[in-house]
Amino acid sequence: MPQPPPPLASPLWRSLRAYQIFGANTEVGKTVFSTLLCKAAAARTTGRGVAFLKPVSTGPDSEADDRHISKFASDVSNKTLFQYKIPVSPHIAAKLSNTTIPSNDTLLFQCRDYAAQCANIGRKWLFVETAGGVHSPGPSGTTQADMYAPLRLPVVLVGDSRLGGISQTISAFESLRMRGYDVESVVLFKEDRYQNFDYLSEYFAEHHDVPVAGVNEPPERKSSLEEDVRAMAQYYEEQSQGKHTGDVISHLDKRHEQRIASLDSMATQALEKIWYPFTQQSLLTPKDINVIDSAHGDYFQTLAPSSSSSSQNDSLLRASFDGSASWWTQGLGHANPRLTLAAAYAAGRYGHVMFASGIHRPALELSSALLKGMNSPRLDRVFFSDNGSTGIEVALKMGLRAAKLRYGWAKEEKLGIVGLKGSYHGDTIGAMDCSEPSGYNEKVEWYDGKGHWFDYPTVLCIDGKWRVNVPEELRQALGEDADFSSLSEIFDVQSREQKGHHVRYEAFIRESLERLVKQGRRFGSVIIEPVVLGAGGMALVDPLFQRALVNVVRKSPDLFRKSGAAAEETPSDPNAWTGLPIIFDEVFTGLYRLGRFTSSSFLNTYADISVHAKLLTGGLVPLCTTLASENIFQSFSSQDKTDALLHGHSYTAHPVGCQVALESLNDLQKMDHDGSWNWAKSQGWKSSETSPTSSQSSANVWSTWPRDLVEDLSRQTDRVSGIWALGSVLAIHIKDASGSTGYFSNAAQDLRDTLIAGDSEGANGSWNVHCRVLGNVLYLMAGQKTTEESIAQISLELRKGLQA
Amino acid sequence: MPQPPPPLASPLWRSLRAYQIFGANTEVGKTVFSTLLCKAAAARTTGRGVAFLKPVSTGPDSEADDRHISKFASDVSNKTLFQYKIPVSPHIAAKLSNTTIPSNDTLLFQCRDYAAQCANIGRKWLFVETAGGVHSPGPSGTTQADMYAPLRLPVVLVGDSRLGGISQTISAFESLRMRGYDVESVVLFKEDRYQNFDYLSEYFAEHHDVPVAGVNEPPERKSSLEEDVRAMAQYYEEQSQGKHTGDVISHLDKRHEQRIASLDSMATQALEKIWYPFTQQSLLTPKDINVIDSAHGDYFQTLAPSSSSSSQNDSLLRASFDGSASWWTQGLGHANPRLTLAAAYAAGRYGHVMFASGIHRPALELSSALLKGMNSPRLDRVFFSDNGSTGIEVALKMGLRAAKLRYGWAKEEKLGIVGLKGSYHGDTIGAMDCSEPSGYNEKVEWYDGKGHWFDYPTVLCIDGKWRVNVPEELRQALGEDADFSSLSEIFDVQSREQKGHHVRYEAFIRESLERLVKQGRRFGSVIIEPVVLGAGGMALVDPLFQRALVNVVRKSPDLFRKSGAAAEETPSDPNAWTGLPIIFDEVFTGLYRLGRFTSSSFLNTYADISVHAKLLTGGLVPLCTTLASENIFQSFSSQDKTDALLHGHSYTAHPVGCQVALESLNDLQKMDHDGSWNWAKSQGWKSSETSPTSSQSSANVWSTWPRDLVEDLSRQTDRVSGIWALGSVLAIHIKDASGSTGYFSNAAQDLRDTLIAGDSEGANGSWNVHCRVLGNVLYLMAGQKTTEESIAQISLELRKGLQA
Repeated sequence: MPQPPPPLASPLWRSLRAYQIFGANTEVGKTVFSTLLCKAAAARTTGRGVAFLKPVSTGPDSEADDRHISKFASDVSNKTLFQYKIPVSPHIAAKLSNTTIPSNDTLLFQCRDYAAQCANIGRKWLFVETAGGVHSPGPSGTTQADMYAPLRLPVVLVGDSRLGGISQTISAFESLRMRGYDVESVVLFKEDRYQNFDYLSEYFAEHHDVPVAGVNEPPERKSSLEEDVRAMAQYYEEQSQGKHTGDVISHLDKRHEQRIASLDSMATQALEKIWYPFTQQSLLTPKDINVIDSAHGDYFQTLAPSSSSSSQNDSLLRASFDGSASWWTQGLGHANPRLTLAAAYAAGRYGHVMFASGIHRPALELSSALLKGMNSPRLDRVFFSDNGSTGIEVALKMGLRAAKLRYGWAKEEKLGIVGLKGSYHGDTIGAMDCSEPSGYNEKVEWYDGKGHWFDYPTVLCIDGKWRVNVPEELRQALGEDADFSSLSEIFDVQSREQKGHHVRYEAFIRESLERLVKQGRRFGSVIIEPVVLGAGGMALVDPLFQRALVNVVRKSPDLFRKSGAAAEETPSDPNAWTGLPIIFDEVFTGLYRLGRFTSSSFLNTYADISVHAKLLTGGLVPLCTTLASENIFQSFSSQDKTDALLHGHSYTAHPVGCQVALESLNDLQKMDHDGSWNWAKSQGWKSSETSPTSSQSSANVWSTWPRDLVEDLSRQTDRVSGIWALGSVLAIHIKDASGSTGYFSNAAQDLRDTLIAGDSEGANGSWNVHCRVLGNVLYLMAGQKTTEESIAQISLELRKGLQA
Repeated sequence: MPQPPPPLASPLWRSLRAYQIFGANTEVGKTVFSTLLCKAAAARTTGRGVAFLKPVSTGPDSEADDRHISKFASDVSNKTLFQYKIPVSPHIAAKLSNTTIPSNDTLLFQCRDYAAQCANIGRKWLFVETAGGVHSPGPSGTTQADMYAPLRLPVVLVGDSRLGGISQTISAFESLRMRGYDVESVVLFKEDRYQNFDYLSEYFAEHHDVPVAGVNEPPERKSSLEEDVRAMAQYYEEQSQGKHTGDVISHLDKRHEQRIASLDSMATQALEKIWYPFTQQSLLTPKDINVIDSAHGDYFQTLAPSSSSSSQNDSLLRASFDGSASWWTQGLGHANPRLTLAAAYAAGRYGHVMFASGIHRPALELSSALLKGMNSPRLDRVFFSDNGSTGIEVALKMGLRAAKLRYGWAKEEKLGIVGLKGSYHGDTIGAMDCSEPSGYNEKVEWYDGKGHWFDYPTVLCIDGKWRVNVPEELRQALGEDADFSSLSEIFDVQSREQKGHHVRYEAFIRESLERLVKQGRRFGSVIIEPVVLGAGGMALVDPLFQRALVNVVRKSPDLFRKSGAAAEETPSDPNAWTGLPIIFDEVFTGLYRLGRFTSSSFLNTYADISVHAKLLTGGLVPLCTTLASENIFQSFSSQDKTDALLHGHSYTAHPVGCQVALESLNDLQKMDHDGSWNWAKSQGWKSSETSPTSSQSSANVWSTWPRDLVEDLSRQTDRVSGIWALGSVLAIHIKDASGSTGYFSNAAQDLRDTLIAGDSEGANGSWNVHCRVLGNVLYLMAGQKTTEESIAQISLELRKGLQA
């Protein structure tokens, strides 16, 4: 595949005031206002300081907007990128033109390129005029409001002064605003009959704090062309020198300064006012702060480091691949208009509404969609909270109560959980207490870990080989490291069980639990992150080991009941929990992060309680759901109010979150169904390329990251201790010369620094890969809409960074 | 004040399919489509089953839409409510008409009334045609999209087939959608040149799953009126019987059935799939579930109980005053378009973006606005989390660490907190551990309360008198109950201190703490809800007592350092904490819930750490901020990463929440500044009516609920044990015949049931007051935009309910 163009850096320079002119409708006078603004700007600027760009123009040459500008504002540089002669919408004109239809990227790159040229030769103003109304389609068919969004140019909106124009102007404004455009000025013709100017001035002042400027209408068309030109010329002279147009230019000038001043000062102000999460702030200086002007798709637009110099000609923004998926939340891309509109609909229909003993459609439909998507005989009910940590606390309250009642433990007999070493379930005290003592929690004053945490075999690609690595301490019990032909072979738990690989795992787990119980330990739930332990250090666990843990616990109620107690009756419900309630923390691993709706499927088993957040809303707003079986639910059922699950947050099941989640799930499931990730699966992951025994669909694992990239990087054995990729996650374990590992190692910093330094100014401005490390692990996480092109570009950066 | 009309129940009947017709622009053929839809519907309906309503019409009678309907669809009943002859926008026409301009309410009430008449006489269809475009202003000047939103009629959008019409149609759709309208169908003329129909069919199918129907254009205008009429009549006959119009009617018919089927089944489905927060679900039946179709301002639209019968003529929805402010979150009204657009802007500009070591404008501006609003020398930094409970866990981690380091406590020496009995800080385990054992937490498996909780004097209006009530056990130490002339006099803590009222309080607190410390107890923070203990039972605490607690602790570092340790150096920072860090949980009490930006002002003191949520986002999405002093922040500063505050949620400082919060704070502060609550303050609360000594502004307390209502209800001493009102909160403590109090009392259920039963069908449909009780306390909570009229109506219901 040929190297794709680098991502687009939004055009912003200190010296160049670039604005995009949108119209509330067609025929509202966009070109007249463009001409006026160009002339008024030129009058304040020495030399040929003003430029005009028409990216797409339709209609005969003689009526083209660039000609109009040439005629009436001859000192303004002007250019049209794509001109179509037929006076219809660009999407039709382009189709009929018999020329290659420019893609959105092509158009944006050329716009940026023209802006960069303007900046480089010292122009002060650039006006970019769109065609038709805000949602008129561009050549590709995408509407302009969506197409131009990545440029993030601030906007002058030309309002409609005709009958109905109030409505057109407000709706056009809203369509822009909900795509994150900063509409800095509304301009329209003043006219006495409909008085749209009066209404709109008041409306925008009251509701949006946006100034509205009114300008007299141009003269009526004269009988001769010559007269017409003369009248228009006179009109432009008068109006461009008039107060109103001048005020607009002054305002745009001021807003440009303010935007830049704000970007310049944000890092310093942030360090003064913000208390950052998970951050030793004394180690940070303003240059360490990622100043985010906007985001689109997989990319942030951030303040470029060079821009701190006073150079007027450096591009201020650069594209930054969001390599941590914004703390693992992103799936459907930043600023996704579908999710925006879903959020806006729910906000407009409900706001937030009381959920205790109440129901609204978004919550009910989301619950149905989640339960259906999980397709588990053990998950019947949905409890809502706000984030993974609270969702885990809910799961814990559910699981512990169920176990306590089944086994008749007294209140004083505190139950612990069974988990894995290095697990992480959130930052609230209850969630923290589910993890073993570690750097995350040992200094936290009320932390008090309650449970037993197993060590386990992990999966890594090392020097090109896919290996199950057994920790040294466990080799006697579990055997030596073992190599496999592929990741899919490791994940083929059924074949491996047929070969008896699980027998030693199960024996070890059973014996360990027996020993603990003999020591007087009591347990109330199992809680694990299926397959990947995220925050604990991106460990890919041998799925067979987790499956063995679940199976042993379920087969061993004798271990968990009171010593000497008779065996409880076999529950009539075949989906009732046995042994201990099994909680799966799928906050990070579920909902397609690892390529599947539920990460429980990798273990080929079902949880009794399952927690889902992060990707649940596609990466927009906080929401968490804790799913549980009817059997668990019934543990809280009685005639006593105090037996209820006494948990609930104010914004429980807030409609905005539910509607966005519903939209996200639908979109993700549709992508899955439509084969949208076939390009990724064919990057060496397809099961046909793995061993014949692993042909069952449950064993098919794949990643957004190409298999040859993973294997090649793993061969850099002087720097890389191992690597894995699954779904959209890539985790590179770096060798730490000092021998220290875990969260507080600095080993991965070098690679991170290389990626963050990024590419210097290129065709579309500079770009880099923003990423986070977890101690000695550098991970990259794509979204579910990340393109093959982006992955190819980043793969190249990784190869460069590791000289692979 | 004359009794205002009751709130509007959204018009929905089983038998009547009512749709609102909006136009993407003026002159797009709304009336032609109305006529077509009326005729097509009539063709499927026996008798005069179809009605047409034009709420507002402008232009000469001869061109009026109702005439057009009469002419071409003579079997359709039709009506115009307000007709203005001048062909301009209704807001101008109404002004020029020399008649009373109808208010939005008047218009909506009349629309509902007409729909009710249609339902009562068995009509099957009603089409309500708007004027101009979606945002064309109504007579009052409010744009129609905002004005008609409370009706919640589903919509047929007439698209624009002209050049530019694609943009107009999509923008109009978006403006409707973001106000919660269900646009069920888009219709427009088919036309070959611009092919808008083709584009829009595909666009709406792909993006919104909304069908688009195309109909041939009407014949060109003929030279004679007669010919014209004949041609149009023929056109209507052909098109209304054509497949496309028929498909629209079938679709609208189906969607109506689906909406009702969904409302009918939601309660049952909810009880099967949802696990409700804080609810003993076994005590619920479907009729206990509040089925919410939509919400607007202070009112839900809920499924009315009678509608479960199969009667075709009962109105299905009723207006329900959101009397719990949706778990205390609501301030600026449900479905507030300002908040919707703020949310949409942030979603469209950022989505969610990584906040650790990052910054974006909404987060920074919100931080600045909060710190400025708090106006506290002790609050310098903002930490973000998702809800009050997590915000408290953050505060706790901050406070305990600061105390531990200052006093040199070892890790094993667990520190408790100092609080008040009945306090409540959230449902996560760490937050629960800040509260004494109670019905909320004692059955929760990992709950382990850590601290000492003081009992305290409360404030109540009893039998018309404002009284500080001292619990019997404390009378020896604190003295007897005391009556005051007004609530403001009780809140005048400065005057009361001048009189020495605080001396016994301080002595009692100091002695209690001395005793506890002698017993070996160690403390790390004070945590209190200023003035009102919410979830713990709506107790209004004597502010002087809380102030005394803060003052004693700050003066008593000797009590909290290790026994025998030397006094620490006086910190150079005058705003450094002393004694213990003071945490104010303002989640419920702050941000104007009690009438002021911060509830700390009632205590005339400043916290070291302060937690804010609920009203922070005006009632739209979850967000919490924990504010702290620089001095506290510095406790976490070192060269060691593990000393950092290791807390942070995935959606930390999500831009949607921050932007909405910024908009909310601005709006609330503006209302405060503009005197928007003067009507409430003048309901007997103004300080001039209280004692002269309490004239200082800090003592001015007031409520949305009239003082005479509070005092009158308090005189129902056979049922009411006391009552208080402050800000938007009213709390009625009901006498429990069984003697039990607290969360699990059922005493307030009777009054609640009366309010929820509500009014039967009235002028604008039925309405009720939805409210929650906390044991023996029934509380009502208004929003910050609740009107005097709503309060007057609800006050009447309360008087009826208590026969006061």
